[in-house]
Amino acid sequence: MTTDLIDSGNLKRLSRYAKVSASSTLSQEALTALLPSIDAVMIFSWPKFLTQQGLAGMPRLRFIQSILAGVNHIPFKTIKEKVVVASNAGAYSGPVAEYAWSLLLSAAKRVVEHHVSLREHAAKLVRHGDAAEGIYMLEGKTLGILGYGGIGRAVARMSEPFNMRVLALTRKGTAASGVTLLKGKSGLERILTKSDAIMIALPLTKSTTHIINKNALAKMKENAILVNIARGELVDEDAVYKHLKAHPGFRFATDVWWYRDNRESLKTNHDFASLPNFVGTPHVSGPSGLATGIPITVAVENTLRFLGGKTPENIVKRSDYH
Amino acid sequence: MTTDLIDSGNLKRLSRYAKVSASSTLSQEALTALLPSIDAVMIFSWPKFLTQQGLAGMPRLRFIQSILAGVNHIPFKTIKEKVVVASNAGAYSGPVAEYAWSLLLSAAKRVVEHHVSLREHAAKLVRHGDAAEGIYMLEGKTLGILGYGGIGRAVARMSEPFNMRVLALTRKGTAASGVTLLKGKSGLERILTKSDAIMIALPLTKSTTHIINKNALAKMKENAILVNIARGELVDEDAVYKHLKAHPGFRFATDVWWYRDNRESLKTNHDFASLPNFVGTPHVSGPSGLATGIPITVAVENTLRFLGGKTPENIVKRSDYH
Repeated sequence: MTTDLIDSGNLKRLSRYAKVSASSTLSQEALTALLPSIDAVMIFSWPKFLTQQGLAGMPRLRFIQSILAGVNHIPFKTIKEKVVVASNAGAYSGPVAEYAWSLLLSAAKRVVEHHVSLREHAAKLVRHGDAAEGIYMLEGKTLGILGYGGIGRAVARMSEPFNMRVLALTRKGTAASGVTLLKGKSGLERILTKSDAIMIALPLTKSTTHIINKNALAKMKENAILVNIARGELVDEDAVYKHLKAHPGFRFATDVWWYRDNRESLKTNHDFASLPNFVGTPHVSGPSGLATGIPITVAVENTLRFLGGKTPENIVKRSDYH
Repeated sequence: MTTDLIDSGNLKRLSRYAKVSASSTLSQEALTALLPSIDAVMIFSWPKFLTQQGLAGMPRLRFIQSILAGVNHIPFKTIKEKVVVASNAGAYSGPVAEYAWSLLLSAAKRVVEHHVSLREHAAKLVRHGDAAEGIYMLEGKTLGILGYGGIGRAVARMSEPFNMRVLALTRKGTAASGVTLLKGKSGLERILTKSDAIMIALPLTKSTTHIINKNALAKMKENAILVNIARGELVDEDAVYKHLKAHPGFRFATDVWWYRDNRESLKTNHDFASLPNFVGTPHVSGPSGLATGIPITVAVENTLRFLGGKTPENIVKRSDYH
């Protein structure tokens, strides 16, 4: 069972190993009739038919492949332990890392703030000095990356021409040249205190929720730049708003938003967009990655591993999630 | 004679070779009395005391060092031929190239447009597909650079992690690896037609004024991105406005503005800032470069070459200018 996001070329590849149906093309009746025979499901957001009851009527189900990189939205408690769930980690690395750099540079150079002041006819040409205030150079500065998966690595690579020192928080893996890997609480603390810019590229799990809270913000440099291209809930909404108000030199740029009723929402507790030291965009980095077609192909290839009897990649460690 | 931009360390270095005065610290009387003895002048914008009459009273003048990278604002016709004028080309390369990339990525990813729609409560979270519209990937695309001096080279270097094909327009010089150098009208035409993004990093001279005019814009790709971090007058104001209106997928980002009464001005013939496919900032890249202290030091070092009897660098070819 797949979603209608799968293109015809990839449908063909899947069809060599399995009978494939896109759930959106089936009537509720036909879908209900098919469920008992389904071995594997490819999903984007969590589909409506995969209720607790729906899952109970799928005795053959062994594999769920997420097309989204993150799997924090998956209700693991309703899924039997024998079902392997695979994330699509790394499939969006290129587009999301490019997007991450657009947010980092926009924030560092005050592009959005200056454009808005121009738009509102409040901008002035200043001959020298003042106009440069708060335009940070990245060259030679320290970049902290929370999460050193596909996106984190791509973000680190893009920092090379800026000659930045890179500190990355990770649980595993080997560092690319010029990157210092750090682990655990002490590693996080070092990154928070030493970095001029911090990029959040972590999965949202039990242990990473609100990893950037009041305490973490207090450890960061007064004029640091925080960028979130992962999941809104990695940052404490109220704490970051208070921090932005209290520290005008601190900047926060985000493409991802907090959850309201278990769904990401642009409704916030505070008027972030009115702050000059905030840059926000409505979660467009992922969709722009999807548009390249790469995430679909990566997810299909992983599903082909399962269908071909091999061990899929990116198997989710359920204990990381609620 | 220097400006008050020179810091005390650099003043000391100059003082080993010459008696140094900052014009702003002198009364009009004292300044007038000093002019006949002046051998060299360091300037930022063109100083008021260097009128035709003022220059006529400076028989010893042999050297003018610009602290600005560009020298298009210098009234060459009023300056005797024996006076060597040096630009400060290359002295802002790092900061301006970083700024150039912030504009290029902002435009490619629609960061400003999305932030503004969020600010005006018009943004929506779109689950997949639509939100990605018009978010361009840079990976694998072609970057055209008009001008392959210090800034152009630094801009090319920063494209490396994006795996872009780089075409650069230049009159001289050797290419870094991965960069194709092109010359003259045919080179310009090839860059205009082949590039997905074009960065303007040229000096403003007789031959580069309005190098991006109606004809040039017509040759560019429908969805190309044009970035100007050099001088406003390199682009034809009316032509680019019409082009932006007619081609919603085309984008123009600029930090530099057109001249009104011989001075750069934010007053424009058209309301650029109201266009969704325009990004503008009030010429902050240069001042932010100045804030690093590097341009002053580079200008001082070149002046020390003159004072020490060596040939200064960046000697301006006057015939390039009006």
